[in-house]
Amino acid sequence: MNVTVRGRPQPCRTVAFDRAHNAVRLIEQRLLPHEFKIVATKNFRETAAAIRDMVVRGAGAIGATAAYGLAQGALAFSGRHLPEFRRHIETVYQTLKAARPTAVDPVNAMNDVRAAMRAGKSVAEQQLLALAAAEEFASEDVRHCEDIGRHGAKLIRNGMNILTHCNAGWLAFVDVGSATAPMYAAQARGKKFHVFCDETRPRSQGATLTAWELAQQKISHQIIADNAAGHLMQRGEINLVIVGSDRTLGRTGEVANKIGTYTKAVLAKRHGIPFYVAIPLSTIDWKLKRGFDIPIEERHESEVLGAWGAVWNFKSQISNLKSVRRAYIRVANPTSGARNPGFDVTPPDLITGIITPAGIFKPNELWKHRHRLGFVN
Amino acid sequence: MNVTVRGRPQPCRTVAFDRAHNAVRLIEQRLLPHEFKIVATKNFRETAAAIRDMVVRGAGAIGATAAYGLAQGALAFSGRHLPEFRRHIETVYQTLKAARPTAVDPVNAMNDVRAAMRAGKSVAEQQLLALAAAEEFASEDVRHCEDIGRHGAKLIRNGMNILTHCNAGWLAFVDVGSATAPMYAAQARGKKFHVFCDETRPRSQGATLTAWELAQQKISHQIIADNAAGHLMQRGEINLVIVGSDRTLGRTGEVANKIGTYTKAVLAKRHGIPFYVAIPLSTIDWKLKRGFDIPIEERHESEVLGAWGAVWNFKSQISNLKSVRRAYIRVANPTSGARNPGFDVTPPDLITGIITPAGIFKPNELWKHRHRLGFVN
Repeated sequence: MNVTVRGRPQPCRTVAFDRAHNAVRLIEQRLLPHEFKIVATKNFRETAAAIRDMVVRGAGAIGATAAYGLAQGALAFSGRHLPEFRRHIETVYQTLKAARPTAVDPVNAMNDVRAAMRAGKSVAEQQLLALAAAEEFASEDVRHCEDIGRHGAKLIRNGMNILTHCNAGWLAFVDVGSATAPMYAAQARGKKFHVFCDETRPRSQGATLTAWELAQQKISHQIIADNAAGHLMQRGEINLVIVGSDRTLGRTGEVANKIGTYTKAVLAKRHGIPFYVAIPLSTIDWKLKRGFDIPIEERHESEVLGAWGAVWNFKSQISNLKSVRRAYIRVANPTSGARNPGFDVTPPDLITGIITPAGIFKPNELWKHRHRLGFVN
Repeated sequence: MNVTVRGRPQPCRTVAFDRAHNAVRLIEQRLLPHEFKIVATKNFRETAAAIRDMVVRGAGAIGATAAYGLAQGALAFSGRHLPEFRRHIETVYQTLKAARPTAVDPVNAMNDVRAAMRAGKSVAEQQLLALAAAEEFASEDVRHCEDIGRHGAKLIRNGMNILTHCNAGWLAFVDVGSATAPMYAAQARGKKFHVFCDETRPRSQGATLTAWELAQQKISHQIIADNAAGHLMQRGEINLVIVGSDRTLGRTGEVANKIGTYTKAVLAKRHGIPFYVAIPLSTIDWKLKRGFDIPIEERHESEVLGAWGAVWNFKSQISNLKSVRRAYIRVANPTSGARNPGFDVTPPDLITGIITPAGIFKPNELWKHRHRLGFVN
């Protein structure tokens, strides 16, 4: 998608590979939305550190980063001895895997790359196959998001107000995003619409990342407190809701996503507003039988008790320091604690449809269409 | 209620009168929850400034402050000439009224005081009557809140988890509060329960004021993001909701309250959780016929785009400066704007009951009981 640098929009991807310098190029997401910076990791250890330290986040984005990291590690090997090369690749693989031990995407992505490498008969051949497979993984991520956009764009009509929650945008993928994909596709088709971004406390990914994305792409939008969506729906000011998903149960159509998603679905139902979930196929869980069994991570209470942001000068409308100074402030009563569940589960009766790269499906029909949706027994 | 000073709980009121120094004593609410300080206004102009500058806020609290301010102004008059005294009182009245031009409570409170003064035949008599009337106004505010507590405490059973939104606590009244009154009364009766305080973005009154109150009173509580209530209800972790109200329509039972209240009511309905609104009689509007016609204030977008708090040092767990340094940080993307409706309207079908000083009523039965509820034709 676009990033505006010195007033000019330029195309940019969240993750890319720089062949000339054998480097993975990443948007330094921890600086957003206050600073835009591309970092280039010089070797696979730096790439692993970037995954671990949340320079890059989001399922598709960390998958592609790990795939590129494996190729980067392969290309850095200078000998010709295949068994030695394989030991080296094993080190690279384990280093990248350990960067985010609970995430499944880096592992799946690297398994793709390793499988492709096996066809190579020499170190040099395997190195080229590794890079080609990593590039293919990234391209497929983009194609799938574009497919989501193509299907979802049909839901967006001129003049609509769309609500979205958290960030399921191109910053979480290689490009395009999931929940944002229909918006970008509708914009490309010349449609005019407005987006309300839920702030998405406690980590405020809507106010920081989604709003930043939409601003770069020049899509009309406003941020709202998570408390405001109900009122806007009541006054007829929201026509469509599109959110992403961290895990969707293929057997039941239940959707786990950022805390607050369920609340928006309940509100949408009461007001007869269509509620859609946009997902890449990799997030469908074909095994689990009950949404209640999805583990809900309880995150640190400091997220709820305070906020991160840029120290702000109201006069100059921006921090007057050379580089933006980020700070944590304690908002809440210092002697109080917090509960902080990170995700919630939305049942299928509240979901109008699931937008996938293969089309839009009713949540309770995912299982029926499982073979089109990548189900592997 | 209690305030813990140097480890010891001490009784304290939000607003009180210091007769020896002819001063109004107020909790400096702008410093909460990071600092507790009582300020004493030396004259009626300082009292008006305290109302204007939000040292004190909340319907009952600013009503009592204005009543005391009028008595303070009366007592400061040193002559014996009645017509001159009346001109002075008019100046005091107008000065206090202008401090918060849209609020109705200061005007009602001062009208009570002025009406009581008329029985006095001399300046000295009128001065004493003014103070007695102001004291009576404050005492009545406390009695009404205690009555709300007495009725509402019956709803609270041992082991319950109660959700509340924003701050309808004793800091908004002279003492005791409205939504918090049943909790304090239940605590006094030895009941054990737990309170979830909605953070209540964008101004975070739940995380700052309600949590501070409950901590002072040693009531078990946790702060949650506004996004989390739906999930907790879904998991059976909330048994009762009690909120306050800025305006309740006596003809329809519709309740205007802080933005996000409506959302919690919709969620409670879906989960079959009782949803109560606690109100003093002064907030019932007997005239308006449709909740849709309640004007919803659109507040400044900076509230949504950032947050106020204390600059925090994670190591020392508190600001390491001598006095707490408060700062505004910009959380959101700097080039994005926000919508910021301050209130929403909850329809009667979502409300289990309205807790008033005169008892608990179904929202659609307020009109039937209007004579018990202070209706004046």
